[in-house]
Amino acid sequence: MPSDSSVDSAPDAPPRESVVDLLGALAYGELSAFAHLAADAELAPTLAGRRQMSAMAATELGHHQQLAARLVELGAAPDEVMAPFIAALESYHSLTEPSTWLESVVKAYVGDGMAADFYREVAAFTDDATAELIGRVLVDAGRAEFAVREVQAAIAAQPVVAGRLALWARRLVGEAISQTQHVLADRDSLTELIVRGAGDLAGIGSLITRITDRHAERMTALGLDS
Amino acid sequence: MPSDSSVDSAPDAPPRESVVDLLGALAYGELSAFAHLAADAELAPTLAGRRQMSAMAATELGHHQQLAARLVELGAAPDEVMAPFIAALESYHSLTEPSTWLESVVKAYVGDGMAADFYREVAAFTDDATAELIGRVLVDAGRAEFAVREVQAAIAAQPVVAGRLALWARRLVGEAISQTQHVLADRDSLTELIVRGAGDLAGIGSLITRITDRHAERMTALGLDS
Repeated sequence: MPSDSSVDSAPDAPPRESVVDLLGALAYGELSAFAHLAADAELAPTLAGRRQMSAMAATELGHHQQLAARLVELGAAPDEVMAPFIAALESYHSLTEPSTWLESVVKAYVGDGMAADFYREVAAFTDDATAELIGRVLVDAGRAEFAVREVQAAIAAQPVVAGRLALWARRLVGEAISQTQHVLADRDSLTELIVRGAGDLAGIGSLITRITDRHAERMTALGLDS
Repeated sequence: MPSDSSVDSAPDAPPRESVVDLLGALAYGELSAFAHLAADAELAPTLAGRRQMSAMAATELGHHQQLAARLVELGAAPDEVMAPFIAALESYHSLTEPSTWLESVVKAYVGDGMAADFYREVAAFTDDATAELIGRVLVDAGRAEFAVREVQAAIAAQPVVAGRLALWARRLVGEAISQTQHVLADRDSLTELIVRGAGDLAGIGSLITRITDRHAERMTALGLDS
């Protein structure tokens, strides 16, 4: 069964390899997000903040488990299909290690938000079951409200913070784009999935525009210049 | 309602303060266990091990949330009632920081197992709803099997490991007892709960014997001298 070259039998179904790669990248992304959010929770100035970021971490681990279970259903070994994505994701995290609580909050909202938008766009090019699963594991679950409250309160207390956090957000975006390019250069199956799904260069352009627009909305919600 | 001095209206119900303290200690214990297991997961030599310890961490966070919810039901503020227990629990963790994967596995099974036995014993002296909740959040959930498999495989490959891990387990037990004594010296409500529940010195003696016996069983299961 897993030897079939596509996830379902429809003639225009995406190749199984692309779907497995996408799920593998996202599954490792969630495992890695778990570890980094759990560590960043220790930066919280209050128990309430620490509990909230710890809860986000636990939620990511739950999503990781759902993605790993789907990979097993597809006949893939989660640990094997996650392996090619470890280096890029860990590079992203080590290049964007927050040194303050507010940096970790902005990262959890802006960085993870942009990654989620990217996965959602690519998921639309896969089969229905995969797209549905990815949509389900990428729910925001109150993270926006939390980040907006923390960052706006900090800016109100000390306006100079806004400029520093805006710079920090630009660094997050820069590193996220750079690591995504590394992954795509390495994994033809994912590049093909995007090119085939977007149709042409104009399609890819509007995909990037949608991701950029949603990023700008998040920055505005935080009260930061994008 | 929360101003009532006991959790339910039975005349022999434990004082509300003891129950709140016990739930507060355990709630912080679970939050702290979450953070330390999540960090220790990074020591895993394989993705499978890392995923398994990360899943344990996420489970602890879920337990923390259930205990916090119960505290809110009792009219208590979780962050306030957890605060007095932070120092002792963090001391335990900083004095028993694992330096290898196997040390972290033994800590997750032997250290957390002994703590769970202690909480279970004390929970028996509270009201039914509290005892039931504490019993529910202290389920082992496959941790024994996992620890036994990892440790026995390591000992089979390199028998000298057994002696080192047995010493490590003794250190865990020593620090756990020492921090428990600090907490009890500080919190009269908890000492009273235990003294009242156990009945007399003989009762306390048999409580300690039960905890020690279960610890010895875990050590035997791992193939370690206790």
